[in-house]
Amino acid sequence: MGKVFLSITMSLDGFVAGQEISQENPMGINGQLLHKWLFAGKQKEDEAIAIDMFKNCGAVILGSRTYTTAIDGVWESQSPFPVPALVLSSRKINVTKGFTVVSDGIQAALSQAKIIAKEKDILVMGGAGVVQQFLAAGLFDEVHIHIAPILLGKGTRLFEKENNRVVELTKIKVIETPGATHLFLKPADK
Amino acid sequence: MGKVFLSITMSLDGFVAGQEISQENPMGINGQLLHKWLFAGKQKEDEAIAIDMFKNCGAVILGSRTYTTAIDGVWESQSPFPVPALVLSSRKINVTKGFTVVSDGIQAALSQAKIIAKEKDILVMGGAGVVQQFLAAGLFDEVHIHIAPILLGKGTRLFEKENNRVVELTKIKVIETPGATHLFLKPADK
Repeated sequence: MGKVFLSITMSLDGFVAGQEISQENPMGINGQLLHKWLFAGKQKEDEAIAIDMFKNCGAVILGSRTYTTAIDGVWESQSPFPVPALVLSSRKINVTKGFTVVSDGIQAALSQAKIIAKEKDILVMGGAGVVQQFLAAGLFDEVHIHIAPILLGKGTRLFEKENNRVVELTKIKVIETPGATHLFLKPADK
Repeated sequence: MGKVFLSITMSLDGFVAGQEISQENPMGINGQLLHKWLFAGKQKEDEAIAIDMFKNCGAVILGSRTYTTAIDGVWESQSPFPVPALVLSSRKINVTKGFTVVSDGIQAALSQAKIIAKEKDILVMGGAGVVQQFLAAGLFDEVHIHIAPILLGKGTRLFEKENNRVVELTKIKVIETPGATHLFLKPADK
């Protein structure tokens, strides 16, 4: 079976988006500064990381806020993913081709994702709320955090919620580029 | 003139200490897991970083909680620093040899530290409250953050307080060891 992995970009002070997220500004105020490694500041190592993310990926899980703020804006009304994506949402929402809504929680989403992905990996891409639920349940086989060298000061914290689980991590690899410190980690007990 | 720099160890999820800090357990619950790079898991690169910290250092600034929880415990009633240290405290506290209390804020502490350090650097070592004040005032010339590969889940956050200042950082160097990702950064505008 494939692995369940997180891949997300975080500022050094722990934010995955700025304040005042909207369709027009899906990363929030100054949030675009997080992703220089994917855009203006991209190096060939960064590009390889972005490509590798989907190399063995069979399904994507994301939160409904991430979906709704991105779909009609940056994603231009179509899925940006090469594989099926599951949107966690407690409310009934309409989604476009390539997405399926899962309304009964992360375990249900993960079960569906495993059926879709078969032997391949499952990428959990956020937002922060979804990541916190996966962390609290100890569901990640790997955690890929791309730390952007910026202090954003305020916004959405990846680790906002306190967690009773202490997770010691071992490093799979660390790739350093001007735009990010790419940490590839896995729980020491996995 | 020397530089004003932060050097602090932080978990990947942003904590510089665990919960329930006390004299007996100055790093709080599980807090000792942050500092493997300085103790059980120390590599020669880690040791060089710990030594370099004081190579050109002329004065240290720390908070009163850091002082009071450490002095009679881990520091065994004497200063662990090779240079004079200033303790920021709004209350009047008695301090041992090697320490001086500064009761009128970070700017006053910095002025005194500059007189003591002369041409040398000034190390701000925490705790989190002191660091947040220095960040908000834009006083750091360099920020050295040693990220421990652990999710602590709860404790004292280094970046607890929201900050109106967005600080883009450039990398001076990054040193990777099993126990830490040592990020040496400076504000892009400095």
